[in-house]
Parts: sequence; C-alpha cells; structure tokens
Amino acid sequence: MSEEPPFENIAIVGFGLIGGSIALAIRERWPSIRITAVDRPPVLAHAAGSGAIDRAAKSVADLSGIDLLILAAPVEQNVRLLREATAIVGDGGLVTDVGGTKRDIVNAACALSGARSAFVGGHPIGGAEQGGFAFARADLFRGRPWILTPDGSTPQEAIDRLTGFIKSLGARPTTMGADEHDRLMAFLSHLPQLTISALMEVVGEATSPSGLRLAGRGLVDSTRLASSPADVWREVCASNAGDIGVALELLIARLQQLRAGLADAETVDAVFGRAAHWRAELMKGHE
Amino acid sequence: MSEEPPFENIAIVGFGLIGGSIALAIRERWPSIRITAVDRPPVLAHAAGSGAIDRAAKSVADLSGIDLLILAAPVEQNVRLLREATAIVGDGGLVTDVGGTKRDIVNAACALSGARSAFVGGHPIGGAEQGGFAFARADLFRGRPWILTPDGSTPQEAIDRLTGFIKSLGARPTTMGADEHDRLMAFLSHLPQLTISALMEVVGEATSPSGLRLAGRGLVDSTRLASSPADVWREVCASNAGDIGVALELLIARLQQLRAGLADAETVDAVFGRAAHWRAELMKGHE
Repeated sequence: MSEEPPFENIAIVGFGLIGGSIALAIRERWPSIRITAVDRPPVLAHAAGSGAIDRAAKSVADLSGIDLLILAAPVEQNVRLLREATAIVGDGGLVTDVGGTKRDIVNAACALSGARSAFVGGHPIGGAEQGGFAFARADLFRGRPWILTPDGSTPQEAIDRLTGFIKSLGARPTTMGADEHDRLMAFLSHLPQLTISALMEVVGEATSPSGLRLAGRGLVDSTRLASSPADVWREVCASNAGDIGVALELLIARLQQLRAGLADAETVDAVFGRAAHWRAELMKGHE
Repeated sequence: MSEEPPFENIAIVGFGLIGGSIALAIRERWPSIRITAVDRPPVLAHAAGSGAIDRAAKSVADLSGIDLLILAAPVEQNVRLLREATAIVGDGGLVTDVGGTKRDIVNAACALSGARSAFVGGHPIGGAEQGGFAFARADLFRGRPWILTPDGSTPQEAIDRLTGFIKSLGARPTTMGADEHDRLMAFLSHLPQLTISALMEVVGEATSPSGLRLAGRGLVDSTRLASSPADVWREVCASNAGDIGVALELLIARLQQLRAGLADAETVDAVFGRAAHWRAELMKGHE
C-alpha cells in the first residue's frame, strides 16, 4: 500500500453502478487518489454524502488537473463528451470509457487526431441486479474481465498504464479490437438482453396479470434482465445495430426451426443437448 | 396432527424432483401415510436409503392397496401408464398426475370410461435449479400454486378430496380446464424454456468457449434453464405443440420488429418499457 498510485486525480463522468463501483474500488485500493464525479446534482449529493468522492462537478468543463478521465455515461453520451474530455485532460493524461459498445467511441477517438491525452476504450464486465450508485460495490469487478480496445495508434505506454490500473482494482484485463468486441458482445450481452425483454413482454401480454401469478421459478429466474432501463439499451442498440441484427437473425432462425419441429424428438433433443453443453461451458468460467 | 390422513397408501410413479418432493412433504405432514415409489432400481435404492418411502416397486403392476396414485414420470409416459394405474387403484381411490401439460392425459382419462378410480389431472408449480430426487425438498410446493384440471365428468368428491390433500402439503390449489392450462403454460413455462435453450445454443456456437469466459452475469443468470433435460421437454413439446407454436410465433414476430427497429429509439423504448412493466407484475406474486 506504500506504492505510488498510478494516477493522482481521477474524474468519473456518469456516477451509476459502474462509475460508482469504480470509485469505491479506487477508494479501497488507492485511498490517496482524489476522485471527482460528474453527474446530476442529486446523484452527486448521494455520492459526496457516502464519502465515495472528493469533489463533485456539474460538467466536464468544470474539471481541471485530471490525469485519468473515465466516461461512464450511456454510450452515445460518452461519444459526445469525448472531444471535451480529451481536451480537458492534461499532457500525459488518459481518457477511457466503460461503455458496452466500442466501435463508435474508438472511431470518434481516431477522428480526434492531435488530442493531447490518449484514449483507450474499455469495458468492465461486471453486473448487478439493479443499476445506479445505490447498488455500487467495491468488488463489482474483482476477478471479472475488463476488456480494453486499443487500436494501432494507441501509445503502448497508455495501454500498459491503464492495464496496470485495472489489475490494481482486482479485474482481469484483456485486449481485443473494437469490432471484435462489439460482435462478441452482440451475442454475450445484447442478444440475451433483447431476447429476455421481448420474452417478458410477450408472456405478460398473453397471460395478463392474473396468469402471471401462476408462473414458476423458471420464468422468474430467467427474466431478471427484463427490468433493465431503456435509456442505457436504446444507445447500445443504436450503436451496435449491425452485429445485434445478425445475432437476432440467428436466434429467429433457430426458433423457427424449433417451431417447425416441436413434435419431432430429434429437433428438440438436438437443441436441448447443445444448449446444455454450452451452459456447462459458460459455467466453467463462472463458479 | 391427530387428524385422520386423507389417504392411507400413496404410490408415486416416477421419483424425480417433483415425485420425491411430494413424498418428503407427505412424510412431514402425514407421517402415518405409507408411501410406495415406482422407478428404476438405483433411484429406488436412494429413496429407500433416505427414508422417504416405505416400499419400492419396479412397476405399476406390482402395486396393491393404493388409494392415491400419483403419476410423476414424463408426460407421455404418464399417459401410457394411465389405464394400468386406474385399474390398480381400488374403488374410491384416486389417480392424479403432476405433468406440465394436461390436455393429453385428461383426454386419455375421458376415454377410459368405466375406470373404477377417479382421475384428476394436476400440475404443481414448483421448480428447483436441478432435477432428480437428490434435489427434492419437503417445502418445494409451500405457498406455490398447484393447478387441478377436472372436467365435467370428474366427481366433485374427488376434486374436494385432492384439493384438501394439496392444501395439507402447503400448496395453493387452483382449478382450470386442461385447454386453458396448456395455453397458459405454453407462455409461462414452455416458451421461456425453449427460448432460453435456443438462446444459449446460438450464443455458445457464435462465441466458442473462449468467448463465453467474457460473458457477464446477465447471461449466466438468464440461462439457468438451458441445462434442463431433453427427455422431460421432448414430451412437453410434442404434447403441447399447438399452443407452443402460437407462443413461438408471437415471440418471433416481436424479435423481427426489434430487429427492424434497432436504431429506432421508440421501438426499443416500447419493448423495454412493457418488459419492465410485466416483470414488475410478475414479481408481485413472487416476493
């Protein structure tokens, strides 16, 4: 704990579950780092009251002396804030983000040639039942992947510095291109979210409230994601529509095959067999 | 506890999660009832060793003196066993089942005119992470719905007697027609199961094992049902193909709308808004 902290002044723009959890993880590991949060006043009041931050700011323009700026707002908002964020961070400083899609913001960063600070896209894979700073936890990222998406022009020193910082918070950094990230997340995150939301909608409308009380644990356990907020997902869908579209088409085709083969034991057995196989593979990394 | 038990000799045919949990619930509430299990020898050995049953039998033909016979095998097997089961149960005895679809078995019972025992279809809505007697629990049905599906020819006395028994095990009995049950379960249970299995299959195949390790908690939490066994679901799909087909078509249509409107905020907002509404309704009955 007597080590030099990797940054001295960190700003977190957007203080929800992810931004708030990063602040708590920093507090725990590097208590000397000064943390500034940018968000709406009631969120900032809550954050300041909890001791998670040192300073509160209403906008990126109010920041100064920041050596790491973390964009943790919804993805399209992060893209809009990028130019201002890179300008406000001093020489040798870094800007990163935590958005669930990476192509748009990496492209935007490439277009900002001559920015004094380096941008490295990031995506911590942590999740909780509910969003918002109220559910933030210092250990949200512990042992979990944190994907970085540098491109050919990202200085290696910036990648190394951010990688070291992420490790110091307990996460497991991994690196891939923005395109690969977005295609992968279309399947691992975006398709499941949209499928569960559509499923909950169809089930609710077909059974009405009095039918829902007869639902078993399977439906309850499977549809937790159905309470996800539209404002986050609207931007994810728009910024990754191509890859999500491909994923949706694959699922629709599979559901159509199932629909045609409901009375055919081979069709049903094949789907259940492969599903159980992949579920077991999934759980190998999550025990 | 000094009350007269509603039955004296109960046989449970198929001793998995549901059959086994019924035995444990009976043991707890009515220790004087004699319980006979019918299943494969290794399952029976486990059941007998745990003290959950008094007798083990290899087949329905080996049973005698039974006043309640509970068919708890996969649904098509229950239908095949029905004639023998009603014949083996004495005058004034009852046969019920616990299958997830009801139309086939109720139709089969109607065709058995002149059977000495009365049949009342049943479906306890209890579920657990994993199937099999090893996961059976005496409280699996406590406070949970248990649907009965009598038809016009079912003696009221049989309905009342079974209703009282189900209440005594802690469940909440409710009554509806077999057609209504199967349509409702197509949405509440069968559609979610098939959707989750297809989703897990598509996600696994598109991302390969190395991609799955980057999955977040959302995918893990949403796909528990993907490990469900094919042998149970093959029969559910075949016996309720019509209603499940309708449900699948509604979901496919909704996914196609979403696919076409990924970049359209109104489309995405509408799905997420309605999904969150129905998820909240669902949770009202499950807290």
